Amino acid sequence: MGHVIVDVMPKPEILDPQGKAIAGALPKLGIEGFTEVRQGKRFVLAVDGEVTDAVLSSAREAATTLLSNPVIEDVVSVREATAAELEADTAQEATA
Amino acid sequence: MGHVIVDVMPKPEILDPQGKAIAGALPKLGIEGFTEVRQGKRFVLAVDGEVTDAVLSSAREAATTLLSNPVIEDVVSVREATAAELEADTAQEATA
Repeated sequence: MGHVIVDVMPKPEILDPQGKAIAGALPKLGIEGFTEVRQGKRFVLAVDGEVTDAVLSSAREAATTLLSNPVIEDVVSVREATAAELEADTAQEATA
Repeated sequence: MGHVIVDVMPKPEILDPQGKAIAGALPKLGIEGFTEVRQGKRFVLAVDGEVTDAVLSSAREAATTLLSNPVIEDVVSVREATAAELEADTAQEATA
């Protein structure tokens, strides 16, 4: 079974209140050094079988018609997911 | 200026109503073939200067303490962003 990842972010010129709230909260948690935070969306679409060009084309159509609002958001990536991209980052948990 | 990308997804065993709604809507738009959709979050954190190991370590701390809810979400990736990952996917707009 294959998976396609679609990444959607608010356009650079659009205000991102969620990101701003996170950027404001980080120093209060003692996490310094980040000058800006922007929050977007990440979709994982599963298909039976392999991720072919036709599947990617369908995913692009989904990305622009349903998964993003083209007035305020950019589709930044539509790509086949690697196995590593689908699993929790355990290295990251170990260092946290 | 460097950027760190943090990807957060609902844990596999957690119900994802937003993803389910999208999966149900796709065939109504004539987009067939996707068996499951899951929706997560993607954060872009900006830093002055380069993305060092210390910056990644801070980003991991942010990912687990503020950007995700460990009860229902997994941090799937904390990594330095490439230039291509920060821009709108124009190839994708051309084919849409």
